[in-house]
Amino acid sequence: MSELATFLDGFDERDWQEADASDGPIRIAMVGVGWWVTDQAAPAVAASELCETTVLVSRGKEKSEDAAAELGVEYGLSTDEFEEGVAIDDYDAVYVCTPNATHLEIVETAAELGKPVLCEKPMEASAERAEAMIETCADADVPLMVAYRMQTDPAVRRARELIADGAIGDVAHVHGHMSQPLLREIIPDPDQWRLNPDLAGPGASVTDLGVYPLNTTRFVLDSDPLAVQSMLYSEHEGFEDVSDERAAFTVRFPDGVFASFSASQQAHETGFLRIVGTEGELVLDPAFFNRTDAGLTLSCGSQTADIDFEAVDQMEEEFDYFADRLLTGREIYPDGEHGVVDIRAVEAVLDGETETRTL
Amino acid sequence: MSELATFLDGFDERDWQEADASDGPIRIAMVGVGWWVTDQAAPAVAASELCETTVLVSRGKEKSEDAAAELGVEYGLSTDEFEEGVAIDDYDAVYVCTPNATHLEIVETAAELGKPVLCEKPMEASAERAEAMIETCADADVPLMVAYRMQTDPAVRRARELIADGAIGDVAHVHGHMSQPLLREIIPDPDQWRLNPDLAGPGASVTDLGVYPLNTTRFVLDSDPLAVQSMLYSEHEGFEDVSDERAAFTVRFPDGVFASFSASQQAHETGFLRIVGTEGELVLDPAFFNRTDAGLTLSCGSQTADIDFEAVDQMEEEFDYFADRLLTGREIYPDGEHGVVDIRAVEAVLDGETETRTL
Repeated sequence: MSELATFLDGFDERDWQEADASDGPIRIAMVGVGWWVTDQAAPAVAASELCETTVLVSRGKEKSEDAAAELGVEYGLSTDEFEEGVAIDDYDAVYVCTPNATHLEIVETAAELGKPVLCEKPMEASAERAEAMIETCADADVPLMVAYRMQTDPAVRRARELIADGAIGDVAHVHGHMSQPLLREIIPDPDQWRLNPDLAGPGASVTDLGVYPLNTTRFVLDSDPLAVQSMLYSEHEGFEDVSDERAAFTVRFPDGVFASFSASQQAHETGFLRIVGTEGELVLDPAFFNRTDAGLTLSCGSQTADIDFEAVDQMEEEFDYFADRLLTGREIYPDGEHGVVDIRAVEAVLDGETETRTL
Repeated sequence: MSELATFLDGFDERDWQEADASDGPIRIAMVGVGWWVTDQAAPAVAASELCETTVLVSRGKEKSEDAAAELGVEYGLSTDEFEEGVAIDDYDAVYVCTPNATHLEIVETAAELGKPVLCEKPMEASAERAEAMIETCADADVPLMVAYRMQTDPAVRRARELIADGAIGDVAHVHGHMSQPLLREIIPDPDQWRLNPDLAGPGASVTDLGVYPLNTTRFVLDSDPLAVQSMLYSEHEGFEDVSDERAAFTVRFPDGVFASFSASQQAHETGFLRIVGTEGELVLDPAFFNRTDAGLTLSCGSQTADIDFEAVDQMEEEFDYFADRLLTGREIYPDGEHGVVDIRAVEAVLDGETETRTL
């Protein structure tokens, strides 16, 4: 068999999986019933191998009951009921998908109830609160995972493997971008939590989107950032309270690796990651959006290979990874310590522009 | 006819051309006989419609005579002979392709001789010397063009037209990169002028490569830079005297457009330009290297069009543009004032790293 065929044949999309359906399911209580839960997370869990949603939690009971009825979930609880431990024996873990600045209190409740946590990214609105979350979970001895869905995307895992194998030599440069028309198409209402610093934290684009190229680079390179520079711009209606309608930020990684990132909540929906090494190049395009076909392109010397991946539901992969780790008692890769590194970088990027040299 | 067919059919690769072969040729004296002249510029002129090479000039007469004999060029002159006006009636214009820091003196000679100038990029080793070059040519009333070969590349001109037509809405973000393995493959000798600040100016990667994404962005957006940030790294053998074996630099353009650029003389040969707007995206990939097939991808909403261009010899296009402008007496777009903007930006990028925020 040729090396290329061996390469293609040798890939295990779920090299992380040890449990199977007979070991599960892990029953999930989802806190928050916004569109990400109803349209992405709940359907993903319904399709998953190792998980099941048994509880939905919302500030208002009517909202959670309506959503539960619609999605065929057993319990619809208010936050108060959740805090009181209602239905505690009917779920094994808690998925937190509420505005960023509310994550800590929900995780505190989950920890008190002794439930492992899958917390949406970014972990919290500040590094201080993210660190408190880590401490809370450690004290209660409950596992904490941050929901980086790119890390279980097959194309991303393949890219990480190629880099580790030296396929492009030493990494020199990274370019990554993610943008979407939040106000024009996704949620056409300026009165939303993603644009409210009290609920979202200090940024709108870097916090919610920029963290994708940043975290995916960390994962693919197996490396953590050292320093940042940033330029910030906010001009249009709806972005009055945030500084980063658009952000461009450069991140220094060890060994002189420079990553040039950008993000915007007010632009065409697109994302890519491009990694240039001393001896080749790796391109993920498109990247970062869920359920899209993924393309990975590897160039070495004068030759280029396009590797296409069928679309996966990244949320399904992520929930099964979480469940698998709980069922087998193994360490979680994107844990709290991993997640807080992004929060510190995001805070540094958003702490006002760094020095610019005027022309 | 469908709009797409009209679009494809309506493109004139040389919309700038008014002269034809019967108006020419413009006879060129090429100063410098390095590999770029012998392997790229001279063959391009030999194939061109409006130009002809009649003189080669080098510091040493033997070198220029040997090259002239090999390339079938009438005169091989020493720099001294060139300065004395030898063969002055046998050429109409001067092409300057010597180390950056020597351009000014050669242009001064050409101006004294009353000859129009096509000067390689970057114009000079400093903005001060580039400004002196502009003044010299203005005083002598000789046209000055800077050799930005991307500006007559059909794919780049098409991209500029699409942006001007609003195909991607308002531009928000740009990403661009150019790198090559200078020492490993192109010129495997650390003792070369591109790595010598006395001859090349302050940088190696930004000056020689970074200027491609920068200038192409200026051309495609029809916009000039306002401010920069930069990160710089030099570590490997051969790069002891320059700060930018690798450079990542962000450029602010008007209206909150951020361009994230990078360049390296010590990495895989690759280049791309990616422009994200509020309503679409335009990708040039590959970009910047001569005689490669060019791909232009336009995405609007959920649809994407790939437009492929056959490889052109960018140098042939550039020389014919220069000749056409001289023959028709029309203004040159990439003139000295245009070129010095890049030099100022490059100087700002290389004036030490701007502030970084440590994590």
